[in-house]
Formats: sequence, C-alpha cells, structure tokens
Amino acid sequence: MKPMSLQNSMFMVLEGRQQPMHVAALHIYTPPAGAGEDHVQQIFQGWRKHVKAGKPFNQRPVLSMGQWNWETDADFDVDYHLSHLALPRPGRIRELLMLVSRLHGALMDRSRPLWEAYLIEGLADGRFALYVKLHHALVDGVTGMRLVTSSLSENPGESKAPLWAARHSQTAPAWPAKSLAEKVVDAVQTGRNIIPGLGSGLLDLLRPADPDDARALPYQAPPSPLNVAISGSRRFVAQSYSLNRMRRIGKATGATINDVTLAVCAGALRRYLTARDSLPAKPLIAMVPVSLHGETGKGGNQVAIILANLATHVADPLDRLQRIVASTAAGKERLSSMARVEKIAHSAMMLSPMLPGMMTGRAGKRPAFNLVISNVPGPAGTLYLNGARLDEAYPVSIPVDFLALNITVSGCGDSLGFGFTACRRAVPALQRMVDYLDESFAELESALSAAPPGPAAKRSRRTAAASAVPEAGAAMAANAGRTPRRRAVRKTPPA
Amino acid sequence: MKPMSLQNSMFMVLEGRQQPMHVAALHIYTPPAGAGEDHVQQIFQGWRKHVKAGKPFNQRPVLSMGQWNWETDADFDVDYHLSHLALPRPGRIRELLMLVSRLHGALMDRSRPLWEAYLIEGLADGRFALYVKLHHALVDGVTGMRLVTSSLSENPGESKAPLWAARHSQTAPAWPAKSLAEKVVDAVQTGRNIIPGLGSGLLDLLRPADPDDARALPYQAPPSPLNVAISGSRRFVAQSYSLNRMRRIGKATGATINDVTLAVCAGALRRYLTARDSLPAKPLIAMVPVSLHGETGKGGNQVAIILANLATHVADPLDRLQRIVASTAAGKERLSSMARVEKIAHSAMMLSPMLPGMMTGRAGKRPAFNLVISNVPGPAGTLYLNGARLDEAYPVSIPVDFLALNITVSGCGDSLGFGFTACRRAVPALQRMVDYLDESFAELESALSAAPPGPAAKRSRRTAAASAVPEAGAAMAANAGRTPRRRAVRKTPPA
Repeated sequence: MKPMSLQNSMFMVLEGRQQPMHVAALHIYTPPAGAGEDHVQQIFQGWRKHVKAGKPFNQRPVLSMGQWNWETDADFDVDYHLSHLALPRPGRIRELLMLVSRLHGALMDRSRPLWEAYLIEGLADGRFALYVKLHHALVDGVTGMRLVTSSLSENPGESKAPLWAARHSQTAPAWPAKSLAEKVVDAVQTGRNIIPGLGSGLLDLLRPADPDDARALPYQAPPSPLNVAISGSRRFVAQSYSLNRMRRIGKATGATINDVTLAVCAGALRRYLTARDSLPAKPLIAMVPVSLHGETGKGGNQVAIILANLATHVADPLDRLQRIVASTAAGKERLSSMARVEKIAHSAMMLSPMLPGMMTGRAGKRPAFNLVISNVPGPAGTLYLNGARLDEAYPVSIPVDFLALNITVSGCGDSLGFGFTACRRAVPALQRMVDYLDESFAELESALSAAPPGPAAKRSRRTAAASAVPEAGAAMAANAGRTPRRRAVRKTPPA
Repeated sequence: MKPMSLQNSMFMVLEGRQQPMHVAALHIYTPPAGAGEDHVQQIFQGWRKHVKAGKPFNQRPVLSMGQWNWETDADFDVDYHLSHLALPRPGRIRELLMLVSRLHGALMDRSRPLWEAYLIEGLADGRFALYVKLHHALVDGVTGMRLVTSSLSENPGESKAPLWAARHSQTAPAWPAKSLAEKVVDAVQTGRNIIPGLGSGLLDLLRPADPDDARALPYQAPPSPLNVAISGSRRFVAQSYSLNRMRRIGKATGATINDVTLAVCAGALRRYLTARDSLPAKPLIAMVPVSLHGETGKGGNQVAIILANLATHVADPLDRLQRIVASTAAGKERLSSMARVEKIAHSAMMLSPMLPGMMTGRAGKRPAFNLVISNVPGPAGTLYLNGARLDEAYPVSIPVDFLALNITVSGCGDSLGFGFTACRRAVPALQRMVDYLDESFAELESALSAAPPGPAAKRSRRTAAASAVPEAGAAMAANAGRTPRRRAVRKTPPA
C-alpha cells in the first residue's frame, strides 16, 4: 500500500455524484481495408485476453486511517474495465456523442483501479470509436491522452498490447506523475520564501477592473450561466477543424493558433449566451494553462496560468480576436518579467482564491474566471490501432461546481479537435455549440477577406511581446507546426 | 415542494456509490410481423415526443434544511431520461445482460426525477429490450414492475403513451406508495402498544439455534461470502422456467410454487458456494417477504416476513426440498397464530436487528439472514408494446452491504423469470448461476422420477399447515395459477 499524495487525494475528496473527477479520451478509427464486420469484436476478444494489468492500471484506491492509498488489486477483472458497446441506428456521430455523454456522467467503482475502456462499434460509415476514462487521481489529462496514444503504432501492421497491459516505464513519465494541483501546491510552498516577489500579484487582485484593459485579472470575470452549481449529468460535443485553416487566420492577423482557438471559442460562446439571452455586458474571462517546459534543461512539467479576456462583449470578430491577442500577450509579458518560481507562484495565487469560492458558493456571484480553455497535446503523425487508422482524437474533461463548461482542444494529425464537456443541466442544448463554432469560424474568415491588411502593425507588436517568453508561446502552439516524427512530449496542464 | 417521508428519505441517505438504491425491470419483446429494421428507432422517436411527464416521473428530490423533499422539475428533459442503445455483436442474451449489469451499477443524477428508460436493440434474434430504472425513494419494486407494465396493452393494435406520460391515477396506487421500510416502521410504532404480544419473538432471538430445526430464526444464519461489504459494480443474470415444470415438481412433493422456487435457488446456491469452496456447514437462511393481502377487506399492502431454512447443507435434492417446505410451513404457522398487527410487528422485529449490524459491519460475522428471495407479481396474459409482444420480464434488484446477492422472481405469462442481482466483486462469476439453476432443476426432476411416491405423507401435513394461513400461502403463489384476465394486483414487498 502506497500513500496517495495529498493533492491527488483531493480529487477523491472533491468527487461526488454531481462532480465526477475523471478525464477521458475519445478516438475514432477507420478499420483497415478488408476488415470484416466482426473487426471490433476481434479487437475486443483479443484485448480481453490481457487479464493482467501493469501500473497504474492495477492500482485501486483504499481509504485507510483517513488517508487515501494505492494498492494492487488482487482481484483485477479485465471484464469490468473493458466493455464492448454499439451505437443504435442510425449510427451518426450524434449517437456516439450521446453515448459518450452518458458514459462520462457515471462515477467509476472505487473498489477497482480507476479506469474504464469502451470499444464502440456501429458508426454508419463503418468506423469505430474508443472511449477511455481515467480518474484524475490516477493521471492528469495530459498524461492520460499520452497513455492512451502510447498503445498505438506508427506501423499499420503492428498490434501492440492494450493500454493496461503495456509496459509504460519507457513511454510514459514516472507514475504517479505530479498533477496540476500538486505543482501548484509545490509552488505555493516554495513561494513562502519569496513573498515579497508576489507583491505585484496581490496588488492586481485589488485593482479596479476595466473591461477594456487587455490584462485579465482574477475577479474581473462577470457572473454568467456557466458559473453555477452543477448536476451529475454530462453533455459532450466535439468537432475537428483543419489546422491549416486556423494557420491562415493566424497569419493574416498575427495571432497564434491558440489565440485563434480562443477567438473561435469566444465567438461560439457569444452566440450561445446571446441565444439564451444571458450574454454578460462584461467580457468572459478564460483561464488558459501554459507550459513552462523548456525553461530548464531538465524537461520538467511546470505549468503557469494566464487569464485571457475573451472580448465576448465585442460584436466585431476581428476586433474580438485582436483584443484576445493583446490579452494573451499581456499575460505572457507579465510571466516573462518574473523569475521561474515567481511565475508558478503567481499562477497559484490566481488559482487559490477559486477554491474557497467554489466551496461556499460565492463563485457564482464573483467567479475568478468563467471557464477553462486548455490545449492538450494529441497524437502527431498517423497512428494505428491493430491496423485501424486513428482519424480523430478528442479530450473529454471535468466540469466542476461554478465552472459548468470546460473546453479542451487537442491536435490529431493536421486537425485540431475541440471538445466541449458540460453539465447537461447548467449548459442545456450544448449540441448547438458545434453550429456556433462553425459560424464563428466562418464569421472570422469572411471578416478577414473583407478587411484591409490593417492588423499587420498589431502583429509585429504581438510578436515582439511573445518573443520575450518564447517558451510559453511555443508551448501554447504545441499542436501547431509539429512534425509527424516528433511525438507530443511537451506538456500543457490537465483540463 | 412536498416533504419526502422519513422512510423514503432513508433510501436517499443510505445510498452511496457502492450502494445505489434503485430497482429496475427488464423486458424482452418480439417485434410485430413485418416490422422494419428501424422498429426500435421508431418507438424511440415516438416516445421522445412526450416531453412532459406526470407524477411521479416529473418529481425530483431536493434537500432543504436537512429534509428531503419532492419538487416538480421545471426543466424536465426527456432526452436525459430516455436512451436508445444497441448491443454489440454477436447480440446474444449474454451481451444484453452485460449491458444491463453496467447500467444497473450507475447512480442516477439526483438533480432530476429519479428514473431512466433504455430501449435496447440488436439482439441477434431480432428481439429488443426495455430496461427501466426507478429509484426506491420513488417507488418500491412491486409498484415499479406494475408501473412499467401499465403502459403495455392487451391489444397488439394499441399504442399507449409511454410510462412517464401516462396518467397513472387510475392504474396505479396513490403516489407516493408506502414502501416496505415505511410499513415496517408503521408496524414498529403500532407494536409499541402490544409489546407483551411480541414476547415469544424476543425469546426466539435468544434460543440456541439447531440447523435441523425447521423454524429459521434471526441470527441462525451462518457467515457466508454473500454477507460482506459490497462494491459499486453490479452483475445481473436472468433465466426463465416454465411454470408447468415447477407445478409438476410441486404436485409430486406437496410444495407450493414458492417452495419449489426456494429449492431450485437453494440447489444453485449450494453448487455456487461449493465451487468457490465456501459452502457453510450450516444452512443458508433466506428472508422471504409474504403478503398479508386479503386478510382485511380493504386490500391493504401490509407485508410480513418469514425466514426460510434453505437446507443448503443437505446434498439430497428431495430431502432439501422437504426441509424447505417444512421451514416455510413453520414460518407461516407462526404467522397464523398471531393477530394481524402482531404479524407485522413480529416481522419488524426480525428486520430491525439487521440495520445496526449492517451499519457497524458486524453483519458479516452474524448475519440476520443470508439473502432475500422475493416474488414480485409480473404481467399476466399476453401484453404488447406498440404491437411488440412481451416475451420475458425480469426484476433487477438492490444488493446492499452484507447482502451482496438478491434473488427476485417474477411471472410473465406461463413462465417464471429468475433475476439474480449481485455485487460484481463480492459474488464473482455470477453468470455460472444460470448453469447451476439448470442443474438444480434437473437434479430435482431426476430425483423425483427415481423416488417412490413417499413425500405424499409429508404433503398432507404441509397442506394442513398452509391451510391455517391461506392468505399467506396464496400470496406466495401469486404468480402461479393466475388467470390471464386478472392483472397482478396482489403485492409482495419490494426486493
């Protein structure tokens, strides 16, 4: 029995029926040419034979003397963890997303290792899906996406052992990996020694907020329908867009792929809230994790956080994008002027006021920010599962009380997958978000084709700002410009 | 907002991830001749249009000032409650039971009315299934089975409104109906006035136990693998047998249908525990609810409880059956000598020691009984869902801590469906129970064909005992000898 870290224990403690604490990956595959109708059944039967699991897939949580521990499950039962499901007719993506929504809303059995894998057949186009659920106490979202991808092969002729049976010591980081919460707590502990350095951050909290100030600060965020207590049912919708399409917008405006991502989400959120007649007069504020990877030679996993002003109060899509660019640039600029430990501690300061608010319910009236939008590295290049080609990969994340919607994006080959995970009750009719995303994209593109090449001046200013923190800028664009050979080794924090 | 009764609130309070408190009905239907491939999809689309629900299907639980209440769900969302699922290939009953096991292990969302309905297509023989989950705080198992059946029709040409949209005031009892727990608490409260009448019951508790004594008393039950703390995953298996086959055994031995049911279960349990090398030397004791319906002219729902000695320590199947017959006869004889209120209070006495043991974990060392075996009235005659014929109906019940297996049987037409619901971890490889049931049946039948007509003498003795409590005997055989015209109006307590 090995004690669980205090920070990972928090995910056990904070978990409740209305707030499951698991993340997931959703993959969609095309079977190889000539595959029979029983292709998925064959994978399932093959995988079922792997009745033994390696770490962490054989570790179950045990509460002992008030402390959570991990212990090896002596009665490991692969038939509990692995399921074979099918979509009902007509077998569209809609049916897949409805099934995944339902699976994602169910708590796992705590008497077993905290993961579940579902092979799902029955898409009308002949493709199949894999949905893998992993508890956040086990791995964070980034590590989870990596683990799921690590059982794929670049060679269509190769069949690797499934996720739980693979040896992860080579391909994955040491387990348990430090979670975002752990890193933040580490930073706060370190930060105690440098309290004077945090002075400016404390002052920011008290400074009056101005919606047109590019710097987004905690408690500037307006109350919104996204910042309410949540229920136990989930809705998940997803959509992929070509990275080239996003690069074109970025090139024309001097924005990074992540700025374009934020802008497209901002446009969709503005439409969604307008349709619900509840668009706040002040802009929504997104918490955007950025990686500090590369700053040390050791390849650590430290993360920092910036708050991005989504300019959802602005109708013009180009103006909105430029304000987002200015806001993320200002956030990164602030980070660049800090020492490494200060950056992390500063981010901890922005995070820490959130928890008490979430506990007491005050977060609804004074949210620290309105939602989290994060970018999790996805698989690069073309990968295969027993010969079936991975077409789409989406992260499924965790809404929590007072943060009822989570947006996580992840690259897959030359496209970027947008995953929206929400409380089904607090954020109704989430499926419309996909239309709004489409419209938001189109609106931005048509505005660009009509606009004079004005943003160039702003672009150079932004580029200069970003160059002051090259590591953050590069990490934020982790999914852009990857070469097929290079696996996603850079980590952004969990969703 | 209407306060929930204290007793129904108990199902909310006792519920946890490892112990969901819902019951369910599983139906299997044959589509009408000429039905298309999209038959189930059409039912689903038709049902989805019923976006409004009547009581109790529109009532959600709300905790306010420490008290549970029911309130009308203003955001009732039929798409949350109704799902369309499909079985993976090869679409056998095995795949259906695996899916139902998984669905039954998931907690419902407490922010919504506590029911879920699943239309499941994809059985290889062209049939489809309906699984309806109802929280025990909403209805007990008996009422649940009745409600689900009430939306069916005797006329294959009729399409009734689905369960939640039907008007239940005519066909169902007043809601909320009193649950078993409520009735027991009522009885205990009434019993305070008749404490002297309970004297004999108290003495029984202290009398030394003798495994060959036909009277099964609380705390005679041996520790067994069925009496352990449970986990949050479920396994459900089911099998139907012809009532005529059971009647033949009953006729030859003087046993009621319920005695034969207990004997067949006892044989299966003996085989299961022997295979696990954990058959107790003392016989397993089953708690068997019996109905007192018919004793008053008012048609009340009062229930009483008898403890049946399952004689699992006896190898000979006929000897085992005769001991079960003697045990249930003795239990009913005791009931027959009591006044009505005494009977209920006596049953409350047998039940009440269970709860503290279950809370403190002592129940594993000294179980009051080893399992519950109950008989829930099922649909009589041939019923149709939009023209599809109901072939099989099974109750899915609630294992609780220290009662890891529940057996509930229910009639459907001329067969009796056996439903085994268990904690997947405490009662592993439950699917073998179906084979053991088959073997137990065959063993009994072959012993009968070999045996001389000896049991006739015992039969007359037993019949005499049963005739002293005709109402109890009749209720226990509620599923036998029903005429197709007569709907199951008699109630035995919830599973």
